[in-house]
Amino acid sequence: MTTLIRGGTVVNADRAFRADVLCEGDKVVAVGENLDAPPGATIIDAGGQYVMPGGIDTHTHMQLPFMGTVTADDFFTGTAAGLAGGTTTIMDFVIPDPKQSLLEAYRSWRGWAEKSAGDYTFHVAVTWWDQSVHEEMGVLVRDHGVNSFKHFMAYKNAIMADDETLVKSFRRALELGAIPTVHAENGELVYQLQQELLAKGIRGAEAHPLSRPPEVEAEAANRAIAIANVLGTPVYIVHVSCAESLDAIARARAKGQRVYGEALAGHLVIDDSVYRNPDPAFARAHVMSPPFRSPHHQQALWQGLQGGNLHTTATDHCTFCAEQKAAGKDDFTRIPNGCGGVEERMAVVWDAGVNTGLLTPSEFVRVTSTNAAQIFNIYPRKGVVAVGADADIVVWDPSGTRTISAATQHSKGGFNVFEGRTVRGIPTHTVAAGKVVYERGELRAEPGAGRHIDRPAFTPTAA
Amino acid sequence: MTTLIRGGTVVNADRAFRADVLCEGDKVVAVGENLDAPPGATIIDAGGQYVMPGGIDTHTHMQLPFMGTVTADDFFTGTAAGLAGGTTTIMDFVIPDPKQSLLEAYRSWRGWAEKSAGDYTFHVAVTWWDQSVHEEMGVLVRDHGVNSFKHFMAYKNAIMADDETLVKSFRRALELGAIPTVHAENGELVYQLQQELLAKGIRGAEAHPLSRPPEVEAEAANRAIAIANVLGTPVYIVHVSCAESLDAIARARAKGQRVYGEALAGHLVIDDSVYRNPDPAFARAHVMSPPFRSPHHQQALWQGLQGGNLHTTATDHCTFCAEQKAAGKDDFTRIPNGCGGVEERMAVVWDAGVNTGLLTPSEFVRVTSTNAAQIFNIYPRKGVVAVGADADIVVWDPSGTRTISAATQHSKGGFNVFEGRTVRGIPTHTVAAGKVVYERGELRAEPGAGRHIDRPAFTPTAA
Amino acid sequence: MTTLIRGGTVVNADRAFRADVLCEGDKVVAVGENLDAPPGATIIDAGGQYVMPGGIDTHTHMQLPFMGTVTADDFFTGTAAGLAGGTTTIMDFVIPDPKQSLLEAYRSWRGWAEKSAGDYTFHVAVTWWDQSVHEEMGVLVRDHGVNSFKHFMAYKNAIMADDETLVKSFRRALELGAIPTVHAENGELVYQLQQELLAKGIRGAEAHPLSRPPEVEAEAANRAIAIANVLGTPVYIVHVSCAESLDAIARARAKGQRVYGEALAGHLVIDDSVYRNPDPAFARAHVMSPPFRSPHHQQALWQGLQGGNLHTTATDHCTFCAEQKAAGKDDFTRIPNGCGGVEERMAVVWDAGVNTGLLTPSEFVRVTSTNAAQIFNIYPRKGVVAVGADADIVVWDPSGTRTISAATQHSKGGFNVFEGRTVRGIPTHTVAAGKVVYERGELRAEPGAGRHIDRPAFTPTAA
Amino acid sequence: MTTLIRGGTVVNADRAFRADVLCEGDKVVAVGENLDAPPGATIIDAGGQYVMPGGIDTHTHMQLPFMGTVTADDFFTGTAAGLAGGTTTIMDFVIPDPKQSLLEAYRSWRGWAEKSAGDYTFHVAVTWWDQSVHEEMGVLVRDHGVNSFKHFMAYKNAIMADDETLVKSFRRALELGAIPTVHAENGELVYQLQQELLAKGIRGAEAHPLSRPPEVEAEAANRAIAIANVLGTPVYIVHVSCAESLDAIARARAKGQRVYGEALAGHLVIDDSVYRNPDPAFARAHVMSPPFRSPHHQQALWQGLQGGNLHTTATDHCTFCAEQKAAGKDDFTRIPNGCGGVEERMAVVWDAGVNTGLLTPSEFVRVTSTNAAQIFNIYPRKGVVAVGADADIVVWDPSGTRTISAATQHSKGGFNVFEGRTVRGIPTHTVAAGKVVYERGELRAEPGAGRHIDRPAFTPTAA
Repeated sequence: MTTLIRGGTVVNADRAFRADVLCEGDKVVAVGENLDAPPGATIIDAGGQYVMPGGIDTHTHMQLPFMGTVTADDFFTGTAAGLAGGTTTIMDFVIPDPKQSLLEAYRSWRGWAEKSAGDYTFHVAVTWWDQSVHEEMGVLVRDHGVNSFKHFMAYKNAIMADDETLVKSFRRALELGAIPTVHAENGELVYQLQQELLAKGIRGAEAHPLSRPPEVEAEAANRAIAIANVLGTPVYIVHVSCAESLDAIARARAKGQRVYGEALAGHLVIDDSVYRNPDPAFARAHVMSPPFRSPHHQQALWQGLQGGNLHTTATDHCTFCAEQKAAGKDDFTRIPNGCGGVEERMAVVWDAGVNTGLLTPSEFVRVTSTNAAQIFNIYPRKGVVAVGADADIVVWDPSGTRTISAATQHSKGGFNVFEGRTVRGIPTHTVAAGKVVYERGELRAEPGAGRHIDRPAFTPTAA
Repeated sequence: MTTLIRGGTVVNADRAFRADVLCEGDKVVAVGENLDAPPGATIIDAGGQYVMPGGIDTHTHMQLPFMGTVTADDFFTGTAAGLAGGTTTIMDFVIPDPKQSLLEAYRSWRGWAEKSAGDYTFHVAVTWWDQSVHEEMGVLVRDHGVNSFKHFMAYKNAIMADDETLVKSFRRALELGAIPTVHAENGELVYQLQQELLAKGIRGAEAHPLSRPPEVEAEAANRAIAIANVLGTPVYIVHVSCAESLDAIARARAKGQRVYGEALAGHLVIDDSVYRNPDPAFARAHVMSPPFRSPHHQQALWQGLQGGNLHTTATDHCTFCAEQKAAGKDDFTRIPNGCGGVEERMAVVWDAGVNTGLLTPSEFVRVTSTNAAQIFNIYPRKGVVAVGADADIVVWDPSGTRTISAATQHSKGGFNVFEGRTVRGIPTHTVAAGKVVYERGELRAEPGAGRHIDRPAFTPTAA
Repeated sequence: MTTLIRGGTVVNADRAFRADVLCEGDKVVAVGENLDAPPGATIIDAGGQYVMPGGIDTHTHMQLPFMGTVTADDFFTGTAAGLAGGTTTIMDFVIPDPKQSLLEAYRSWRGWAEKSAGDYTFHVAVTWWDQSVHEEMGVLVRDHGVNSFKHFMAYKNAIMADDETLVKSFRRALELGAIPTVHAENGELVYQLQQELLAKGIRGAEAHPLSRPPEVEAEAANRAIAIANVLGTPVYIVHVSCAESLDAIARARAKGQRVYGEALAGHLVIDDSVYRNPDPAFARAHVMSPPFRSPHHQQALWQGLQGGNLHTTATDHCTFCAEQKAAGKDDFTRIPNGCGGVEERMAVVWDAGVNTGLLTPSEFVRVTSTNAAQIFNIYPRKGVVAVGADADIVVWDPSGTRTISAATQHSKGGFNVFEGRTVRGIPTHTVAAGKVVYERGELRAEPGAGRHIDRPAFTPTAA
Repeated sequence: MTTLIRGGTVVNADRAFRADVLCEGDKVVAVGENLDAPPGATIIDAGGQYVMPGGIDTHTHMQLPFMGTVTADDFFTGTAAGLAGGTTTIMDFVIPDPKQSLLEAYRSWRGWAEKSAGDYTFHVAVTWWDQSVHEEMGVLVRDHGVNSFKHFMAYKNAIMADDETLVKSFRRALELGAIPTVHAENGELVYQLQQELLAKGIRGAEAHPLSRPPEVEAEAANRAIAIANVLGTPVYIVHVSCAESLDAIARARAKGQRVYGEALAGHLVIDDSVYRNPDPAFARAHVMSPPFRSPHHQQALWQGLQGGNLHTTATDHCTFCAEQKAAGKDDFTRIPNGCGGVEERMAVVWDAGVNTGLLTPSEFVRVTSTNAAQIFNIYPRKGVVAVGADADIVVWDPSGTRTISAATQHSKGGFNVFEGRTVRGIPTHTVAAGKVVYERGELRAEPGAGRHIDRPAFTPTAA
C-alpha cells in the first residue's frame, strides 16, 4: 500500500517544514518537497494542515479486569478510539496479582491485546517481590521487548509496592537496562484518610479528592526520585497531577538527575469542582487517582510541559460505565477508578496548549509523541516523521473544530470527561502502519491490525 | 541557698542587658541592676561575662542498653559532664523494644535516671504499634509529663517505624497534644546499601557514610514532613545533618508548616574525612547516624540556624569505648553508633558560631536553650533568665579558652570527636537548680541532684 | 498616673500568662499575679481579655504633601485613629525632594508631627545622592535618633533611587549602624508599562495593577537583597505583596542572610478584583503601590508570617479623599497612591490570622509589635509588656466584634478598604504612655501627647 | 567537491546511528548505510569514530579593538583555531561604541571578518539608546541576517546598558522577532567593589574575583529574566558561571518562561584558585568576566547542562598576550578581560562531560551545536548531520588523546587556560562547507573560506 501525503507542513519535535510524505508498506520512504506520486498511490491532500507523527499514549488500561468486572473498552475499541483521535500507539499495563507470575500475567495481556486495531506495548507492574520476580523481569526484558516496570505506591492491601520492593525492583531494572515508573501516592496516608472520612460519614465521591491531597502525591514522587537517585537509575513518574510533585521533579532535574514526568490530558484542563457536582453519578464518573485538582495545578502542569520538567502526555484511559461506577455509591473507596480520554488527548492538548500559545506545534509533537518514543526507546521507529520510521502519521487541521461528546465518541463507557468542550485543531486523517485508518470522521479500524511493539533494553549494567 | 550573680550581661533570646541575677532555692527571684546581696548569699562575680540560661541538650542517650552492653556514660556521668559544659537539662530517650510496653520501658529509664546530677526529661520512642501503644501514649502524656514521641525511620529489622506506625502515632500525638519527632533516614535504602557494600567487600568504617548518603536522610525528612502536613501536626526532625534535609524543612516552613529542626554540634564542625582516617579505630569512633558530611553541609547547617529553619542544637551524646566500637571491626554495620559531646556543645557552638559572627549571643541562647524550652513546652521554667524561672544559669567567659581533649573531659568513653580543638568562650560557673555545680574547672556534681522535668501537653485535639 | 490592668492574660511574643499589669507614669512597673492596686489607681478589668503590647505600625504617611495637596490624615488624626485601633506607635517617613537637604526635610516632618496623639518615629528616605547626603545620614543617626533609611526603587523621574544610590546608601547605612529599607518595584518597568497602557487607551484604575505585575516587585526585592548581600548589610523590604518577592526573601533567609519583610493588612485580605469594580471611584480608592493582588498571594503572605519569612505588619496608611483620587480620573498614573488602615490593622490581622488558626496570640504580638521593636531597635522599650517597658498596652477582647465602616472610623478620607468587614477580636482599652486613651469606643486622644521615639543605632562599622 | 565519511556512527541531538555521510559541494546529500562513493570522492574512514555536526561556538571576540590595542586572534586565526578543534561556526559580537551607529559598527565587523576561515555570524550589542538605535535594529534584522542583540549589564561608564535601555531594547527585539542576550553582572556593584578593593590596596588579579562575586551575576541574571518575563520575550544569558544565576534560570524555566543559558568551557573545568597563583602573569592571564569560580559551581553548571537549564557551550574566546595583560599589572581593573578556548572547547566538554558519564554523545551534540542552531534559528542548516544541512562535520575519535598546550595550539596569544590538560576524545577530521579543513593534526584553513551566516528573524510581533 502506498500513500502520499501532499502539501502539508511536517512537524517534528525539532522543527516544522513544508514537505510531502510518501509511505510504502508500513514505513515512511520519502520526505521531501514535490514528491511524485507512485502509480496507485492514495493521495492525501494536506494543504493547510500539519503532518505529524502519530500520537503515543503512554498510559492506558484497556480491558482491565477489576473487581470481578472489566473496563468498558477492550483492546479493539480502545485502540480504535485512539486512532480516531490521532493516537497510533498505546502503552498499556500488565498488572500481575500479588504472587502471580509476571510472565503468566504478561501472556494474558498479550492474548487480550491481539485484537488491537493500533500498535501497543506494555509496561509490566511489579506488585510483589521474590526471587522469581527478579528472574522474570530478566526474561521480559531479554525475550519480550519490555523495557519499563511500573510500581504502584498507592493501593494498600492490594498492589502497593513497599520500599523494599521499590528498592529491589529499581535496582533490578537498572541491571537490565529498563526504566522504572511509579504511580506516586503514599498508600498508607490514602488508606488512613479514607478510613477517617468514612468514619466521619463522608462517603460520596466528594470524599475522593480529600483522601488524596497533593502532599500525598508529592511525598511519593519525592521518595521514588530519592530511591532512583541513590541507586543511580532513571525514573518516570506517571500522571503528575499537582504543583507539589512537579516541584519534586524540577528539583531533581535541576540537579541533573534523569527524572521524567507524565501529565494526563484530563489533569491539564479539568478541575476538582467536578467532585462537588450535585449529581453523584457525574461526580463518580470523574473518580480517578490522582484526582482532579484545583485550577492552579493546571497552570503548573502546563509550565512543566513548557519548561521541560514534564515530558509526555497520556490519559490513564480506563473506562467504566455508570453501573460499574455505582458500585461505590455508598462508599467512595469502592468506586472503580478511571476515566477515558485516549480519543481526545491530542485535540485537547492542542486546543488548550497550542491555540493558547503555551506550546509550539513542535513542542506539541514532543509531548504527545517524540519524548515518549525516546524515553521508552522506540525512537526513531516511532515519534518522528522521517524516512525509515513507521508510517504512523496524523494529518492535523488546525482550523477544524469538534465538540466532544459521549454521544459521538468511539470509546465505550457512555461518559466523557471533556463533554461539551469544543476544540479547534483536529485530525482529518490518521495513517497507522501505512494504512489510512481514519479519514474525516470515518473510522476504518480493523481488529488485529495493531502490532505489539518490542522495546529494546537500554544498556544494561549487569548480565 | 542564695546566690547572687553580679556584674554580668544577661543574655536572653530576645535581648542582652546588664543586670545582676539573684537566685533563691531553685528559682531566680530577681533580675535587675545593682541588686543587694542577701546575708549569706554566695556571690559570683560575672564582670565581663555573659549570664545565660543553662543549656538544654535535646538529644542524649545516657546508659543506653545496646547489643548486650551499655553506653559508657550513665545518667550520673553524662549529666555531670553536661553541667561542666554549661548544659543543665538533657532530653534523653526511652526506647522500648518492639512489643515492649511503653510504660514498662519508661519506668526502666526513669529508674536509671535517678542518679542524674542535672535535670532530665524523656522523649519516648514509638517503635511498634498496636492498641496498647495507643493507650500508653495517652497515659504517658496525661500522667508522666511526656509531650514528645520519637520515631526511628532507620534501623530496619529493629526499631524502624514503617509508614503505618508513623501515620497512626503522629495522629495519636496530635490528639494528645504531644509533638512527634523523627530520626529521618530511609531504613530500607540504608539496609540495601549496607548489604551491597558488604557484598563488595567494603567492610570498614569508611563504608558507613556510603551507606547513608544525604538523599537517604532527605527522603525520610520529606516523608515525615508530608505526613505531618497531611495530618495537621507539628513535627521535629532530630539531627539534621545535610543541606538536602534542611531544604525539605525550609520548603515546608516557607509554606507556613510548623516544622522544627535540630542540629548536632558535631555535624556543625566535623566533616566526613574522619571516616577516611588511616586509623580504623579513629574512624570507628566517629561512626554515628547520620554520619558526618562533606564540608558544604556544615555551611548549610549554620545558615539554617541563622535563618530560622533550624531551631535547636544537641549532641546525640551516646558514648562507646574503643572496645565496644571494635565489635564492628570487620563489619561496619556492627559498630555501635554514637559519639559524645554533651560537655562540649555549648563551647563548640559559641566558638564556631558567635566568634565568627554567624550568630549573636542572643541567637546562641535561642539555639542552645530557649527554642528547646519553647518547642517542648517547659518555657519559661527553662530557657530564660527571668524571675520565676529555674535557677539554671551558665556564666560565660567570652575570652576564656580551652583545648578540648579526652584526657581532660568528664565524660566517659575515652574519646572526643572535638579532640585538640581550642575554643574561645567557656563557662566559668554553672548554676543548676540554684546550686553552683561547676566553678572554674571544679565540678561539684551530685548523684541524684537532677530532677525529672514534667512537660505539659499542648492543647490536645481529642480526649 | 497609675493604672492597674487586672485579671487578663498577658500576651508577649514568647508566651502568654495570667498576670496583672501595673503602670505608673509612662512605664510598666509591675507584672504579676494578684497585684495590689495603689491608692488612686485606675483599674481596668481585663477579665477574659488579652493584655498585649501596643501595636507598632511600621509604615504610615500622615500629612504627606503630594501634588500640591496633602493626605487627609494629619499626624493628630492619623495617630488618634491608630490609638482607637490599638496601635500606639507609628513609623512614618521623611521624604526629601531630590536635591533637598535630608536634615531640612527631617525638621519639616518633625514639626508637622508635634501634634501627634501617639508616639512616632521616622524612616528617612534617600531619594538622591551626593556627599551632603552621605554627611547628613550621619547627623541623623548620631543626633536625631534615626536608624533606618528608605529607598524607593519605583517612581521614575521623581524619587526613584538608582543602583548607584542604593549601593552607596546601603554602604553608608552599614557604616552608621542603620538599616536600609526598600520599596521594591522596578521603576523602569512600571514606567514603560504605564506608557504602553496609556498608549493603548487603557487609562482607568483597572490599568494600575497591570502596570505593576508581581515580577516587577520581585525583581526589585531580589536586587535590593543582592546588594545587601554583597555589601554585608541587613535589609528590610516594605509592603511585600506577592508570592514572588516573598520567595526572594525566603531564598535569602534560607542562606542565613538578614532580610526582613513587612506585610500590609490590606494585602493580607483584599484582592485585585477591586480594580475591576464598575464604580471607577471605588476602584481608584484602592489604588496603592504595590497594588492588591490575586487571592493566592494572600495565602502566600500568611504563610510568610507563619514561617518567619515576613516579620511585621503595617498599613502604608496614606489617605486621600475621593476628590483627590479623582485627579487621576482620565489617567491612572495621576491617581494619588494610598489607602488607609492604621485604625483597622490590629483587628484585621487578628480576625483573619488568629481566629483562623494561622497565628497564635503570641505570634500576633510578634508580627504587630515585637518584631518591629526589635528590628528598629526600640525593644524592650516597645514591643513587650514587661517591667521597665513603656506603658503602651492594648486590652483585647477576643470575642468582641465590630463592623468596619468609613461611617464610623476616626481616620479621615471618607473611605475604608475594609468597609463592611465584621471582625471578631477588638480592643476595649488602649493605654499609651500610661494613659487610657481609648476605652470601649470612647477616644481620648490629645494633640501633642505623642512623643518622638529616638531609635539608637546598631553597632556601626565605621566612624 | 565530494566527500564520503564512511563507517562511523552519526550522532545527532536526537539519536546516534550507524551511517555513512556523503557531502557534495557545501551540503550533506546523503546519510545512510553502505553509501556508494561517487567517482573522485574523498573517502574519510570513520570506523570506530563518531560523526557529529560541527561545533558552534556561540560566544567569541575575534579581532576585538580594546584600549587602543586588539585581541591576539583575528578572524582568520581565530576561526582557523576553531576548525582545528571541530568548531565550524562562531558567533561573534559587534560592539558599537556608545553613540556609534549600529550599522556603522556592523559594517566594520563584517569587513574584519572577511578573512575568516570558518563560518561566522554576529550578535549586535545595544550599548546605548535613542530612536536611531531603534531604527537600526530593524534594519539589521530585516536586511542583515541579525536575530540577536546583546546587552552588557556590567562595564559601568563604558558599554553598560541601564534598565531603560534593557527594557526598550528587549521590547524592540520582540517586535522584530529577535532574541535579546545579556552579559549578566550588576555593573554598579562591580564598580563599587572595584573602588573599595583599590582603596584598600588590593590591586592584583586576586582582586578580580572579589569584585565580581556570584551574587553580582545572579542579581543581573534575575533582573534580565524578570524584564523578559514582563515584556513576554525570550532571553538568553551568556556565560552563566555560578550556581546562583543558574538557579535564577531554573526558577524561570520551571514557570515555563523561555530562558536559555550558555556555559563556557573554562567555567566548566577551571576554578578560582588560578587567581591566587603566585605568578601574577599567570593570574592575570585568567582574568575574564565573570571570573572562574570555586569548584562547587562547576558541578552546578554540569547539572545545568544535564537537566536542560543550560543549553549551549561557548568560550568567550578573547585572547590577549602577556604584554597586553600586563597593562593591569598595578590595577586589576585595567587588565584586559579575556581568555581563549575556541580550539579546545569541544574536546574539553567531551572529556569532562562524556567520559565521566555526565552527558551522552547526543547530549554533547545538543550542547555544542544543535541547541545553538535552534536558539539562533539556523537549524537545520547547522546543528545536525542530515540531508540538506551544511556539510559542517567533525569526525571524532573517542579514544584519541591530546595534551593541550600553548606550545602546540593554533590560537594566538601565547597562553592556554587548559595548559597541561590531557583530553581523551578529539577530532580526527573537520569538514567545513564540504571541505576537509583539518585532518589528524594538519590544518588546511583558508582565509576567506568562511561565510557570513544570515540568521532569519523569528515571527515578529510588529511591523
